[in-house]
Amino acid sequence: MRSVYFPLLAAAITSAAFSQTGIPHVGLGTGPFVFDTAEQHKVRAVVVVRGIPHPWGMAFLPGGNILITERRGNLRMVRDGVLDPQPLAGLPKVYAVNNAGLFDIALHPKFAENRLVYFTYSKAGPDGQNAITLARGRLEKDGLAEVKDLFTGEWTKILGGSRIAFDPKGLIFMTTGAATAPLIEKAQDPMSVYGKVLRLHDDGTVPQDNPFVGKAGYRPEIYSLGHRDQLGLAIQPETGVVLSNENGPNGGDEVNLILPGRNYGWPRVSFGRNYNGAPISGSPLAESVEPPLVVWLPSIAPSGMAFYSGDRFPGWKGNLFVGGMRRGEIAGTGRLERVVFNDKMEELQRESMLTELQQRIRDVRQGPDGLLYVLTEEEDGALIRLEPVQ
Amino acid sequence: MRSVYFPLLAAAITSAAFSQTGIPHVGLGTGPFVFDTAEQHKVRAVVVVRGIPHPWGMAFLPGGNILITERRGNLRMVRDGVLDPQPLAGLPKVYAVNNAGLFDIALHPKFAENRLVYFTYSKAGPDGQNAITLARGRLEKDGLAEVKDLFTGEWTKILGGSRIAFDPKGLIFMTTGAATAPLIEKAQDPMSVYGKVLRLHDDGTVPQDNPFVGKAGYRPEIYSLGHRDQLGLAIQPETGVVLSNENGPNGGDEVNLILPGRNYGWPRVSFGRNYNGAPISGSPLAESVEPPLVVWLPSIAPSGMAFYSGDRFPGWKGNLFVGGMRRGEIAGTGRLERVVFNDKMEELQRESMLTELQQRIRDVRQGPDGLLYVLTEEEDGALIRLEPVQ
Repeated sequence: MRSVYFPLLAAAITSAAFSQTGIPHVGLGTGPFVFDTAEQHKVRAVVVVRGIPHPWGMAFLPGGNILITERRGNLRMVRDGVLDPQPLAGLPKVYAVNNAGLFDIALHPKFAENRLVYFTYSKAGPDGQNAITLARGRLEKDGLAEVKDLFTGEWTKILGGSRIAFDPKGLIFMTTGAATAPLIEKAQDPMSVYGKVLRLHDDGTVPQDNPFVGKAGYRPEIYSLGHRDQLGLAIQPETGVVLSNENGPNGGDEVNLILPGRNYGWPRVSFGRNYNGAPISGSPLAESVEPPLVVWLPSIAPSGMAFYSGDRFPGWKGNLFVGGMRRGEIAGTGRLERVVFNDKMEELQRESMLTELQQRIRDVRQGPDGLLYVLTEEEDGALIRLEPVQ
Repeated sequence: MRSVYFPLLAAAITSAAFSQTGIPHVGLGTGPFVFDTAEQHKVRAVVVVRGIPHPWGMAFLPGGNILITERRGNLRMVRDGVLDPQPLAGLPKVYAVNNAGLFDIALHPKFAENRLVYFTYSKAGPDGQNAITLARGRLEKDGLAEVKDLFTGEWTKILGGSRIAFDPKGLIFMTTGAATAPLIEKAQDPMSVYGKVLRLHDDGTVPQDNPFVGKAGYRPEIYSLGHRDQLGLAIQPETGVVLSNENGPNGGDEVNLILPGRNYGWPRVSFGRNYNGAPISGSPLAESVEPPLVVWLPSIAPSGMAFYSGDRFPGWKGNLFVGGMRRGEIAGTGRLERVVFNDKMEELQRESMLTELQQRIRDVRQGPDGLLYVLTEEEDGALIRLEPVQ
């Protein structure tokens, strides 16, 4: 009797406890892969480049080249559709431990004039500590020049990622995490920059209209507080709406609408559970806490996130795309989630895509060509382009 | 360039709005299929029989034959591993409209002596109405004899399913639904049997220790109230713990621990949303309402449900299995969910299985052989057996 063998569970696994089972990761095929989707866009997923170990963020350069960060500290370039085997020079040393390292990357809004590239990373400190850092450099032919730290948080043992994005006014929003026990209380500490959304000028200084400027006992960089691990951030270009997402503890992943001075509850209030089963909070809501726009139960481990505003997928216009990383290294369906909102930013629908590929999705961005690009969170990480099939 | 074509989205679709997109259902292959799972049980899924249109419930007879209900009103038998082409005689006419029809089936605890088979169905009434009905009959060679209605609810236009299960004392628990607008308020109406868990003697009479017996304005059959559409019910044999599950509106599927006299909140309180995006309730919890044990956001459309107590899958002992029906007729990953609780019935972990098959799962039961059996909710419905691979 011949069996059809599925080499691993294409399934959602919700608990970190499963990560000890050691079910192997399934490699990505060569593709391209073609999918139907709910909006009846037939979609082709094309592997643009592969062999990028644990890519984290990407930025599209004028002319079509693409910068890609690797968590372990390299900055790579896709030149004319080919991955340059040589990493770019000029990057600072990063503290690449567990989930810490080099994170997101973004171009200055006036990059065409100033060639400035911004990125976030974990800077190594004393006694095994690190500090979340925003830096920038000028992009030259083979690397970054005049690299300089613009903002560095306090030394900590928290190991969390950080996304950055420029808003329509040219201000930088920057996420930080506070998921590492026993330091989760930092998310509520107004003198810590961890577990926050920060808002900075492009030179790293504090905008004077930040909500806590002049308030004693508050770091003035803080824009919102009470966040866990925020691995996705998207600013809608037309509206300036700022969304970040948050990895829940055991269930309770969230997308939040980021508003100035607001508290998002972690670690007091959550839809998730402790790993021993007890709920984090009696109620997942509280009066002083902003409710999430979107909740996942069980978790998908949301990561990079982007609004789609292009013309190539008309049925997806205005939709939010969220990478899901749960849980490639053992058994997961990494996925690309599509979320549809109404005009009050209330959730209407969701769709999970790319589950067949069984790859964790670390980041998603819209390219200048109006197509969607995703990075897979794997040792043999890949850049995949989604195209409509006519 | 050769593409790998996935003929439909193997994805979670959360909104009924998607059901208009008409993405076709993918047929089940001939199998068997072999899966790895998180507990490192390698599992073989064997198609035992197929060609059962929309099966709903099943019951294992002593000796190994299996009774299977079809929603459209037939009762079928798998004899010696083969589906008898002839439906059993003696079934009442059922009101088979949309989701209404013939539902669950269960053997009397003393079936070996009395051969009594219990089932639930929608009985046709005046003016296009129907009534949820519990009936029983004596199983003879070619069908049911002495079929008799034991309990019939009030006439209604609600179209909902109903599960039944005997508890360790021999009492019948029976679920009813109240998901059909505009009749959803029936779930809170103590004079309606819809949107409730009912508790009855094996002759359909009311146990005198039911929580509302003697209370004016309450139907005495009611055991708990405030339920939406309850398509799964499981009683743990060792403990008598009663769990039912509930389909949320748009998100917010639940598993509830059913306790006497308690209110489960529908349609006042829910984790779900209206289809226009607005949340059902400001908070998903309320003081007077029992919180769910398990919540799915987005929805999986939970259906038949069973505790596993066998020895063939040691890692699954005590786990709850829940069929997921979201959303085969258009694009779904039907699935089999495994939920692990701690000894306080707090959720520890979940795993989604059988997603690769892309079939909606209508029911799951443990067979007398200690294996798990599932029914697929399809026109070409199948009975699938899960076996450990040594």
